[in-house]
Amino acid sequence: MQKDRPDIGEYLIRKIAGQGARHVFGIPGDYILNFYSRLEKSPLQVINTCDEQGAGFAADAYARLHGLGVVCVTWNAGGLKVLNPVAGAYAEESPLLVIAGAPGWQERQKYPLLHHKAKEYDDQARMFEHVTVASAVIREPSEAYRDIDRVLSAIVSHKRPGYIELPRDMVNVVPDIETPHPTQEIPGHENRLPDGVAGKVVDAINASERPVILAGVEIARYNLERALQSIADKANIPVVSTFLGKSAVDEKSPNFLGVYAGIVGDDAIRRYVESSDCIILLGVLMTDVNMGANTAVLDPDKMIVLAGDHCSIGQKSYPVPGLQLLPEISGKEFIVHDRSAAPAPVRERTPAFSPSDAKLTTAGLFLALNSFVDEKTVLIADVGDAALISLDITIPAPGGFLCPVYYSSLGFSVPACLGVQAARPDLRPLVLCGDGAFQMTGMEISTAGRYRMNPVVIVLNNSGFGTERPMIDGVFNDVSAWRYHRIPEIIGCGKGFLIKTEKDLAEALKEAQASQELSLLEVILDPYDISPQLRRLCERFAKGARHQE
Amino acid sequence: MQKDRPDIGEYLIRKIAGQGARHVFGIPGDYILNFYSRLEKSPLQVINTCDEQGAGFAADAYARLHGLGVVCVTWNAGGLKVLNPVAGAYAEESPLLVIAGAPGWQERQKYPLLHHKAKEYDDQARMFEHVTVASAVIREPSEAYRDIDRVLSAIVSHKRPGYIELPRDMVNVVPDIETPHPTQEIPGHENRLPDGVAGKVVDAINASERPVILAGVEIARYNLERALQSIADKANIPVVSTFLGKSAVDEKSPNFLGVYAGIVGDDAIRRYVESSDCIILLGVLMTDVNMGANTAVLDPDKMIVLAGDHCSIGQKSYPVPGLQLLPEISGKEFIVHDRSAAPAPVRERTPAFSPSDAKLTTAGLFLALNSFVDEKTVLIADVGDAALISLDITIPAPGGFLCPVYYSSLGFSVPACLGVQAARPDLRPLVLCGDGAFQMTGMEISTAGRYRMNPVVIVLNNSGFGTERPMIDGVFNDVSAWRYHRIPEIIGCGKGFLIKTEKDLAEALKEAQASQELSLLEVILDPYDISPQLRRLCERFAKGARHQE
Repeated sequence: MQKDRPDIGEYLIRKIAGQGARHVFGIPGDYILNFYSRLEKSPLQVINTCDEQGAGFAADAYARLHGLGVVCVTWNAGGLKVLNPVAGAYAEESPLLVIAGAPGWQERQKYPLLHHKAKEYDDQARMFEHVTVASAVIREPSEAYRDIDRVLSAIVSHKRPGYIELPRDMVNVVPDIETPHPTQEIPGHENRLPDGVAGKVVDAINASERPVILAGVEIARYNLERALQSIADKANIPVVSTFLGKSAVDEKSPNFLGVYAGIVGDDAIRRYVESSDCIILLGVLMTDVNMGANTAVLDPDKMIVLAGDHCSIGQKSYPVPGLQLLPEISGKEFIVHDRSAAPAPVRERTPAFSPSDAKLTTAGLFLALNSFVDEKTVLIADVGDAALISLDITIPAPGGFLCPVYYSSLGFSVPACLGVQAARPDLRPLVLCGDGAFQMTGMEISTAGRYRMNPVVIVLNNSGFGTERPMIDGVFNDVSAWRYHRIPEIIGCGKGFLIKTEKDLAEALKEAQASQELSLLEVILDPYDISPQLRRLCERFAKGARHQE
Repeated sequence: MQKDRPDIGEYLIRKIAGQGARHVFGIPGDYILNFYSRLEKSPLQVINTCDEQGAGFAADAYARLHGLGVVCVTWNAGGLKVLNPVAGAYAEESPLLVIAGAPGWQERQKYPLLHHKAKEYDDQARMFEHVTVASAVIREPSEAYRDIDRVLSAIVSHKRPGYIELPRDMVNVVPDIETPHPTQEIPGHENRLPDGVAGKVVDAINASERPVILAGVEIARYNLERALQSIADKANIPVVSTFLGKSAVDEKSPNFLGVYAGIVGDDAIRRYVESSDCIILLGVLMTDVNMGANTAVLDPDKMIVLAGDHCSIGQKSYPVPGLQLLPEISGKEFIVHDRSAAPAPVRERTPAFSPSDAKLTTAGLFLALNSFVDEKTVLIADVGDAALISLDITIPAPGGFLCPVYYSSLGFSVPACLGVQAARPDLRPLVLCGDGAFQMTGMEISTAGRYRMNPVVIVLNNSGFGTERPMIDGVFNDVSAWRYHRIPEIIGCGKGFLIKTEKDLAEALKEAQASQELSLLEVILDPYDISPQLRRLCERFAKGARHQE
């Protein structure tokens, strides 16, 4: 192998490392085994999960914190298991690369029925087209470098997953061409921004009386926190975030009020946002959950929308990726607005946790966690009340909150902590996970132990799917009874805690924080004790679930 | 709702029950919640698994034993998780119905971004087309009955999975048409069989000197055991099975020699089959693993092939679904052949297990299990050495062996035992599962406990992916160290055993057999102790895995 003309496997590894990724998540299988043995000799560290599903979620979380995540799996029997995590990464704009092994081209010709095959040899690649922004099946060695560059560039530009299928007879092939020039830009992102739109945005803000900034998840994806904060400071505008965008902006900033989520969220914030004459949506995904289960009442005439792929002021759209204007806008002059009518930030209205001997409730859990999270914490919430309890917790660390609020696949949180701790070893994951979600992927906590990670994992044991009970209840909402706090005995590391009272929780959190090992806190909750946020969400969603009954 | 004109949900339930299915596997979610509440009031019993992946495998196993299995999941965040099990069901011809919820048609119009959505609302349906034989998205109520009939009919005729997407605003709609006539036949299966082909098959058999029957999995799927046995008895022909077809024919029959699997299987059988002048392949899938990792040396000129979708004698093909000829053929006259040159059946060459204090090896495990399985046992083997150790175990119960030999997705076996015990409560599952596979789906053993099932689950703890070590080894083949035998303490039922010696195993099996509860046997094996079958398979597959190195 020539030093400046690497084989395809080596080229792929170099390009991944060139994007700053240091880890790859996955499970080997024979169609990807030779690439795994290459990974082992590379600067990239492999993290083997229990199941491919867990690897998908872990790599997604890594991508959200680190700018590129990689999951590497075998053909079909591995690849199809990550379609769901990859769909979630697509929905929530996470730059995730899927590397899937596959049978070699020669053996496909020779044998019609190789193991792991369902219908056709190209089915896996075609299925991934539905959940990725770019894909490539490596076939012509002369095109391999360019294909790899194209997929990686699309991932990083669009903050969406991409797919590279690497048939095993391609890994060690050295293409007979020069390496291409540095990664070409994706068309559309080289476009010059039209003059004047930034000025129009500033004019609209300056002409308003009571503007408010609604910060979305794309602010985090495109690293625009500073530009946003600069506008908010100069123009003295209050900032709220969406639920999915939670922690995209500094929640300790004096401008920051809390999360806006229609009737699901804080009512003072809802009233303030919905009565504003200029709602500035920055990088917001207008999804049902983000919009408070579609209860948001936002007047389009009063909206300025700057997003990754569109831009509008009131009813007028501009053909420009709006968020790219943000740095320019942040350099402009602003009128200093009066924000005295804004409600006090949620963090100032939340009392400190003073634990009693009382049975723990979701209300007490919220207060305890709000006191516990610090600037070293990444709070990872699973779907359900784990998410909703987190809605009003103040996150001191920018980027310190992770939750699949939009795609809402259960089972995200425990595997996600693997990605978080690999990407940011300076931070510590605090996982909040319902019992139903934990039974899907929670045994990945053993992977944390294997790699000497020390997350604090809280399992909300309310004996079932608490989110569904208020919609339509039935025994199908129950889950098996596990003794979660004893799992450390099975996996041979960490410590478990059984928590029934507020004081139990306070003591366990204190001990967990001091420990170098992982901790698993099983919190016993009444099956029908749900947070007020979840109750409001469920009341709204129940209409859909009971449709036409 | 009129009694003879059911709404769509009710019609679907009636049709499933009409096929004899009594159980549905799955996990609810809001887009399928109203159908779940209908299931609860129906004669069908819901079995809730820990994860949708487990439900997919369980329903597949149920289908293999019962003629129709059903998995019911929510949209995308549930549905995409079962694509891998459904691909396996497609590959191995299992009649599995997927019912997936989805957003209602009206809400899709109203909201562009509902939770669980990735790109487009129809993506899930399009992805399932790659792993199903028929699919329907219920849209026009007037076509719903027919769509449901069409998909169910295709599943049952072709023994392949089908997909029905049930948007939640369709569940309670009563179509404004009469119910259709009884399920129409699938075209191609009404075809009259051409005269004379059966006679040609008989002539070819009668003209041969040393014929042998190779029985495949389709014999089990199409319930043709009796016709096959009748031919074997009348013509006095030895019978061997493929690995995937293991237990499709009676393994205690005097004709039955054992499993043919090229160089991977028993050598005396290999020599006998490959030197036969008339190899009668009945319902055989010619996959790589079935053909002994493509080492089978079978002369096409000497083959008679009768399969679900083709028919040939030597090099000549006939346009007829060959297996449909089998009942007719079995009624014909046959010359009585001499089978004295056949090797003794494997079962007669296998010594009884006489346990010692010696450390347990794969060789000892094979002997122990061969003595243990009885006519009440269904042996369910996961992929890897769990499968290969099982290859030569004699299965007394027809249909008593289950293993995804072709598709080879790890993690099949533990969830499959749920399907087996629901379908056949008169039989008891014996699960053989590697540690790597167990970490993927093994916690579904808690589901067995929840529904008071009592499988005997054996975990082969050899500290990693033993199938891959002989191909290419690396730390990526290790798995986390779990104390599997203590899992009953976590799930609150059953008993665990830690097994190091042959006597440990004998005692544990005895106790497990006597118990009404589930048992989990953790068997400690050396990481490099693999069965001779697996060694031969790996040596062959290693060439592919190391391709071009």
